[in-house]
Amino acid sequence: MCPIVGVIGGGQLARMMIPPAVELGLELRVLAEAEGSPAALAATSFGDYRDLETVLAFARGVDVVTFDHEHVPQHVLRELVAHGLAVHPGPDALLFAQDKLLMRARLSELGLPVPDWASVASVAELATFLAANGGRCVVKTPRGGYDGKGVRVVSNAAEVADWFVAGEPLLAEEFVDFRRELSQVLARSPSGEISLWPVVESVQRAGVCVEVIAPAPGSAGRIADVAADVATAIAENLGVTGVLAVELFETTDDRLLVNELAMRPHNSGHWSIDGSFTSQFEQHLRAVLDLPLGPTATRDPWSVMVNVLGGTGPTAERYAAALRDQPGARLHFYGKEPRPGRKVGHVTTRGDDLDDVVFRARAAAAFFEA
Amino acid sequence: MCPIVGVIGGGQLARMMIPPAVELGLELRVLAEAEGSPAALAATSFGDYRDLETVLAFARGVDVVTFDHEHVPQHVLRELVAHGLAVHPGPDALLFAQDKLLMRARLSELGLPVPDWASVASVAELATFLAANGGRCVVKTPRGGYDGKGVRVVSNAAEVADWFVAGEPLLAEEFVDFRRELSQVLARSPSGEISLWPVVESVQRAGVCVEVIAPAPGSAGRIADVAADVATAIAENLGVTGVLAVELFETTDDRLLVNELAMRPHNSGHWSIDGSFTSQFEQHLRAVLDLPLGPTATRDPWSVMVNVLGGTGPTAERYAAALRDQPGARLHFYGKEPRPGRKVGHVTTRGDDLDDVVFRARAAAAFFEA
Repeated sequence: MCPIVGVIGGGQLARMMIPPAVELGLELRVLAEAEGSPAALAATSFGDYRDLETVLAFARGVDVVTFDHEHVPQHVLRELVAHGLAVHPGPDALLFAQDKLLMRARLSELGLPVPDWASVASVAELATFLAANGGRCVVKTPRGGYDGKGVRVVSNAAEVADWFVAGEPLLAEEFVDFRRELSQVLARSPSGEISLWPVVESVQRAGVCVEVIAPAPGSAGRIADVAADVATAIAENLGVTGVLAVELFETTDDRLLVNELAMRPHNSGHWSIDGSFTSQFEQHLRAVLDLPLGPTATRDPWSVMVNVLGGTGPTAERYAAALRDQPGARLHFYGKEPRPGRKVGHVTTRGDDLDDVVFRARAAAAFFEA
Repeated sequence: MCPIVGVIGGGQLARMMIPPAVELGLELRVLAEAEGSPAALAATSFGDYRDLETVLAFARGVDVVTFDHEHVPQHVLRELVAHGLAVHPGPDALLFAQDKLLMRARLSELGLPVPDWASVASVAELATFLAANGGRCVVKTPRGGYDGKGVRVVSNAAEVADWFVAGEPLLAEEFVDFRRELSQVLARSPSGEISLWPVVESVQRAGVCVEVIAPAPGSAGRIADVAADVATAIAENLGVTGVLAVELFETTDDRLLVNELAMRPHNSGHWSIDGSFTSQFEQHLRAVLDLPLGPTATRDPWSVMVNVLGGTGPTAERYAAALRDQPGARLHFYGKEPRPGRKVGHVTTRGDDLDDVVFRARAAAAFFEA
């Protein structure tokens, strides 16, 4: 009777869809890789998301298929569509979140601002790109990278000689001199309705997001407008459905360049659970079901999210200490086994004074990182 | 590693504990009566909550046992405690939510304001009480009543002759001439920390709560103070842990009298999911785990909750229509098969103008009631 959403992948993004699904009274089913995943509570199937039969069997029981990650192969996605199943985002859009070379080519074609880039098929081609770009560039594997993996800063083409063995071209990009990283998150429904949260600042350490400030300080006006326009153009031209995160560089010469795309709820939108009227997880569910999107007004002038990386996991003692010290902090944990540097949770704080909000979020998170 | 909360009963109150448990990273386990209950997602055991072995087996795996309802028999509760298990609220407190005669006696002993009452063991005793109370009173079965069941307004003692057959005394109460019904919800932790939400107005129809206005209009000052004082005295003197709801009559001569007690999250606190910084469901989990309680500040001047009773259940079409018409409405459904008059969900709205907030909540709920 109630709509059924099927999520492929059982990670923390699928997990964070559980609360809004329970509240709205939607049925959420998760195809998880294994037992004990963060979204285990909603897991109804287990198996390999690359296996067509596994995915088809799962998809046949739901009203719409969506994703915790972008790794489902194109041929599997296209079979689902061929079977008449609703898939959001669809394969034509997901392609550009799966393959960074295709993404760069498409955004360039659309005239959207991206770093200088080239597809390089050999050490020699990379050496040429390096020479043309001041002797330093960023090399990315087109597929499968995340959290800094599959990305290297290179000043000698031989440094990524090992990456060329597969015979696949790599993406070489200008080393962008940026002031900070921003992220524009939005949701788009199959009907074309689009709803944006304010552009945020995403603070990275060693390629991993550690902190998000919403909205990005000083972004009101031009920066917010450009970020919104670029992300909207991407969503519309690529036919994205569900949540889209557009990671942006704010360069030292005041340009915004598109860095990466994610077509699913994104770490830079976690603050919205507590800081926005509609969270990115609820909005994603509403979007993929083609329901009207919710208001994205912020609850307070500032929201700050700090990731909890590694640590020893949440215990009653740590909860008690963190909540006693920071009563206004919102704690989120993903049910993941802690490992050094692994994202196991996050903390959100809100308020009027940014310094204070940042301080409180870091202070609360620190109780779980020892 | 993370704390495990065990909830006895799989109804909507247990269901609404799932989102905060998932967010905080707590493990929630539910002992449900049957499959397909509102809290089915978190159900790990099925069985009869009156059966000691069933309950003991469930309770042994969790850090604290708490409840979706007050119906677990005293002997079962006391066995759990005897086994060294943490039970919140404990049997000594729950007794007064289970038995209205004991509750009336205890509150009278504490000097708290209650309607005139008597324990009546026969039609003759009830006739005496009636005669002393203007020929009209309310008769209640001491145990098992809810939503108007087990309550009759009587002007002739013979009207409840059928209720005396069990040989158990009944509770006879003064027919209170009240202006409206209020509810004071709070949470208390085993350490004694208490946190209150504002007193709310609870609008009943045929004994069933249909609408809640938070805070109760015109309650600031004396009414709020008295409600808070009475509820705090009850929580402390009865040793309540977890959420306590104290239902109150505001009489036409401006007194507040205690009507009923509930020692669990309560319909009159559902507004707090959307309208308060900390919802009653999160607070209940924090309280029973003896974690510091969260702030209960309201997000907007007014929150209004309207129950969805009966109807034909939520469908994609109804969600779409309701959300299009009332974008700011927060919809909540419990996964229950709709039956006439059954509480299957609720809607919450918030804002600055009470009339508008009430209108919007009713308008959104109406989409599901046809």
